[in-house]
Amino acid sequence: MSEAAQTLDGWYCLHDFRTIDWASWKLLSNEERKEAISEFNRLVDKWNTTQSNNEGSHALYTIVGQKADFMMMFARPTMEELNAIELEFNKSKLAEYTIPSYSYVSVVELSNYLSGESNEDPYQNPHVRSRLYPILPKSKYVCFYPMDKRRDGNDNWYMLSMEERKSLMRSHGLIGRSYAGKVKQIISGSVGFDDFEWGVTLFSDDVLQFKKLVYEMRFDEVSARYGEFGSFFVGNILSEEEISTFLSV
Amino acid sequence: MSEAAQTLDGWYCLHDFRTIDWASWKLLSNEERKEAISEFNRLVDKWNTTQSNNEGSHALYTIVGQKADFMMMFARPTMEELNAIELEFNKSKLAEYTIPSYSYVSVVELSNYLSGESNEDPYQNPHVRSRLYPILPKSKYVCFYPMDKRRDGNDNWYMLSMEERKSLMRSHGLIGRSYAGKVKQIISGSVGFDDFEWGVTLFSDDVLQFKKLVYEMRFDEVSARYGEFGSFFVGNILSEEEISTFLSV
Amino acid sequence: MSEAAQTLDGWYCLHDFRTIDWASWKLLSNEERKEAISEFNRLVDKWNTTQSNNEGSHALYTIVGQKADFMMMFARPTMEELNAIELEFNKSKLAEYTIPSYSYVSVVELSNYLSGESNEDPYQNPHVRSRLYPILPKSKYVCFYPMDKRRDGNDNWYMLSMEERKSLMRSHGLIGRSYAGKVKQIISGSVGFDDFEWGVTLFSDDVLQFKKLVYEMRFDEVSARYGEFGSFFVGNILSEEEISTFLSV
Amino acid sequence: MSEAAQTLDGWYCLHDFRTIDWASWKLLSNEERKEAISEFNRLVDKWNTTQSNNEGSHALYTIVGQKADFMMMFARPTMEELNAIELEFNKSKLAEYTIPSYSYVSVVELSNYLSGESNEDPYQNPHVRSRLYPILPKSKYVCFYPMDKRRDGNDNWYMLSMEERKSLMRSHGLIGRSYAGKVKQIISGSVGFDDFEWGVTLFSDDVLQFKKLVYEMRFDEVSARYGEFGSFFVGNILSEEEISTFLSV
Amino acid sequence: MSEAAQTLDGWYCLHDFRTIDWASWKLLSNEERKEAISEFNRLVDKWNTTQSNNEGSHALYTIVGQKADFMMMFARPTMEELNAIELEFNKSKLAEYTIPSYSYVSVVELSNYLSGESNEDPYQNPHVRSRLYPILPKSKYVCFYPMDKRRDGNDNWYMLSMEERKSLMRSHGLIGRSYAGKVKQIISGSVGFDDFEWGVTLFSDDVLQFKKLVYEMRFDEVSARYGEFGSFFVGNILSEEEISTFLSV
Repeated sequence: MSEAAQTLDGWYCLHDFRTIDWASWKLLSNEERKEAISEFNRLVDKWNTTQSNNEGSHALYTIVGQKADFMMMFARPTMEELNAIELEFNKSKLAEYTIPSYSYVSVVELSNYLSGESNEDPYQNPHVRSRLYPILPKSKYVCFYPMDKRRDGNDNWYMLSMEERKSLMRSHGLIGRSYAGKVKQIISGSVGFDDFEWGVTLFSDDVLQFKKLVYEMRFDEVSARYGEFGSFFVGNILSEEEISTFLSV
Repeated sequence: MSEAAQTLDGWYCLHDFRTIDWASWKLLSNEERKEAISEFNRLVDKWNTTQSNNEGSHALYTIVGQKADFMMMFARPTMEELNAIELEFNKSKLAEYTIPSYSYVSVVELSNYLSGESNEDPYQNPHVRSRLYPILPKSKYVCFYPMDKRRDGNDNWYMLSMEERKSLMRSHGLIGRSYAGKVKQIISGSVGFDDFEWGVTLFSDDVLQFKKLVYEMRFDEVSARYGEFGSFFVGNILSEEEISTFLSV
Repeated sequence: MSEAAQTLDGWYCLHDFRTIDWASWKLLSNEERKEAISEFNRLVDKWNTTQSNNEGSHALYTIVGQKADFMMMFARPTMEELNAIELEFNKSKLAEYTIPSYSYVSVVELSNYLSGESNEDPYQNPHVRSRLYPILPKSKYVCFYPMDKRRDGNDNWYMLSMEERKSLMRSHGLIGRSYAGKVKQIISGSVGFDDFEWGVTLFSDDVLQFKKLVYEMRFDEVSARYGEFGSFFVGNILSEEEISTFLSV
Repeated sequence: MSEAAQTLDGWYCLHDFRTIDWASWKLLSNEERKEAISEFNRLVDKWNTTQSNNEGSHALYTIVGQKADFMMMFARPTMEELNAIELEFNKSKLAEYTIPSYSYVSVVELSNYLSGESNEDPYQNPHVRSRLYPILPKSKYVCFYPMDKRRDGNDNWYMLSMEERKSLMRSHGLIGRSYAGKVKQIISGSVGFDDFEWGVTLFSDDVLQFKKLVYEMRFDEVSARYGEFGSFFVGNILSEEEISTFLSV
Repeated sequence: MSEAAQTLDGWYCLHDFRTIDWASWKLLSNEERKEAISEFNRLVDKWNTTQSNNEGSHALYTIVGQKADFMMMFARPTMEELNAIELEFNKSKLAEYTIPSYSYVSVVELSNYLSGESNEDPYQNPHVRSRLYPILPKSKYVCFYPMDKRRDGNDNWYMLSMEERKSLMRSHGLIGRSYAGKVKQIISGSVGFDDFEWGVTLFSDDVLQFKKLVYEMRFDEVSARYGEFGSFFVGNILSEEEISTFLSV
């Protein structure tokens, strides 16, 4: 048996992708649509308050292509809060005009592959805390994809020794770090929570950096031999000011 | 031909995942919704009676993410009872406002890999009985996933000798046992009943323990080389008191 | 090129799985539902007449879980008759309230792996005839699944010699025979007719025997190395007397 | 790089599978249904004229099982004509009561694996022409399936030398030829046009010959090691005289 | 770690495939349909203006078979513009009568495998610019498919050295070049943007050239061992003049 990496776990995350049923949405009167948008804005206000209080964070992006029209990403201290947010949205007027297209349940995670030894409680370290309980950036672009480490014949990540995995993760981490300042990465673990083992959420003001980063990593042995990828979603930020324009018909 | 493990088989299980059609649900009058909820509560009462009589058990959880809105899990002595429960729910008013999202048919199972020799009839052993005919716990969180043992090239569980499988299951069982008190596991067999070979239902008051347990096991050879996993569902308990709040719109 | 096994082929089979749209079914008046049930019962009468005349057979089972609400299985001398039955059902009132969930097209098949040498015409042998043109039993439970023989790297059934396949099938057949009296198996071939190579329909008065049989076989090399399985359906018999109770709302 | 086989290419083919929405179809008045059937018959007349002029061919079959209710197969000199036929059908009244279930785009193809050397222009050879521009037979049964040649580890058809492929195709072709008179095969290439590399359409007056042919071929190395198969569709001929009976409710 | 190929990246691309809901479309009055078509034509006019200004390009094709009825392909300097085009179309009247069937998000890409050394800024080279910011041709036929480079056991593109990949791409490129004048290829990268790594869009006035090109390449080691292909779409050009005929019912 190979030794499992220890992880630090932060806020729980829900990525919620929705498609708008424009034909039905148009059947509403202007008044009704306005009310639905107001109600949604009140939800956003609530989420903003939570975020101001450092009790969670959220992000809104429109998604390019037919996979979804928009994504709401939520980070919260408990699964109950994620479930409550989802339920509240589902009961809203706007939700009646959206079709669920994909969702992902995970928890912000830092793995210990790259960590040094220390007696310190990492959950007290401010740098670690800012990564486990991140305020999501207002970057222009987002990229989300779920992934697994492969367990296939000779390419079985989980049969490697801790030493091998550490060494492989080192070069992998170097690529990630070379994008510091250009791409912010949030890794969330989903083993036991959803169908892949991790969710990766990338934020950047230059959408091309997503392609460069993911492509460069694909040549790294960790991805080349051991990475299995789910669907990729790419989107543009949906600022609060743009919500009613986005929804106006 | 390799020797099959003997199993002890208890109650039959149906996991029934449902999504609520909130838009249609809202079209009902308050009165109609109230009646639908009352009718559902009467079903729950019936299930409670069965459980009090030790003639079965059930659990209700809301599910996080878009895979489903809630899960009903039923354990009963016969397949006919599971079918009858399902049919009764399907004919209820509430069911008209739910969309089936996933289900799983299995039977609570104890394998003999770890058992000692004994002349005793295990079905008379009170400890064994409590595991084969379990009253489902009221834990805060649930995790469900179906799984197979792999039959792929050199990673073929079913071509291993009983000795090899026993030895591999021993270390696997040790991980499980190290979570005793933190996670309650119910393993149910579904060979011949559903698309995977087993269903795994985990209960805990700390949702993070699901991730820790499943992740740690993934490094164990039984999972690393021989485990194939289906979809993962994670949820929060839906107590009877919360049902009408959950459904109020 | 490896020698193909010769097969004896009997009645053509259609397994037809349906889900009931209960919400719409309830919108009918009692009168309309009664008429729809009567019409369905007249179809069943027709099928009974065919069966009495030994010109085919059929079975009705309710299915546990969300995969379907009920299964109709038909065996007939020609594909045209299967198509006609299906068409007649599709045009019935009840069919308007069912959603097709799965179907399987095949032909009852006996393979010659285990047969001895003989100059006799097997199609005249009464024992063989009773297996090729079976009157489906009224067992309490049914299990259906489609399957393939694997063609994957070193695990390629179709590259084995006839001798190897014969020898492997011998031990496989022994397991099957050890369930004689407990499980009745109908194997139907579907190469060229449907997406898997065979359909397996099991009948028993003890539903646990399905799990025991399929699980035991999975350790047999024929299944362990060469079996690929589709979806499993398990159900309870729906006697003609129960039809209107089953459909009453 | 391995040498690609040269192909001769004939008429473009569209296989169009449809399911009938019987519930909606029944909502029409007799008059409306009659008109819809007449309109469809006029389309068939048009297709017949094209066929009489040797400018294409078509076939109509009802499909057994839930995959589809009927199949229209069209062969035409250009992609534009296929698109026009499809569009005309889609705009017809009957089409409003059908649900697209599957389609396949390809071109009738003869490969040169088995051809001898010749200076002749094969497109002028009457035998070749009758195979490239075939008038589809009115056989009682049809079987359609798409397929690929495998590219998987050591079983990679496209890495074999032309000599190896030729030799393998020879024994494959012998099986096909042994069914001459019993099964008519139309092979159509779909590389670049649809999701598999070939479509295979078999016609016979004995439906069991489909099973025998495909099963026997499965033991041939070309299929056993190198064949990947899509869905299989089997059906009964729908003569023009039967169309209104088929559609009468 | 293997060295990633450098890429030059041009316009972002959205391929948007739609199926028409003809039954609903027919329910509109002639007037309403006319207005919807006019509105769509105004969108096309806008896209034409963008194209005239060299600020993007677009293409309209009808698709053969049931995968879609038509495809709109857009190339634009930013992801925001793609999102805006999609949103504007989604809010149009015509869109209410279309069902999204598939989409693909990518960016026009030139890889450096075949490039020589130079100090020049390639983004200033007019030839390179015309390939990165292409005005899409008005060819009679289009073919689109997404693809991956395989990472499977010994067939792992991303574990090859740059030298090996360069050498393999050379012969691959030769095939492509042998179709110069017959097929125009636009390769767009989608790592980090969509589910495959590349999208391939082929344009030709001879639809058979798509089959010849893709088939010939399949024997090339780059495709034979390392190519994984998604769905193939083939279509006929939809000129602006034909739009109203195409949509007339």
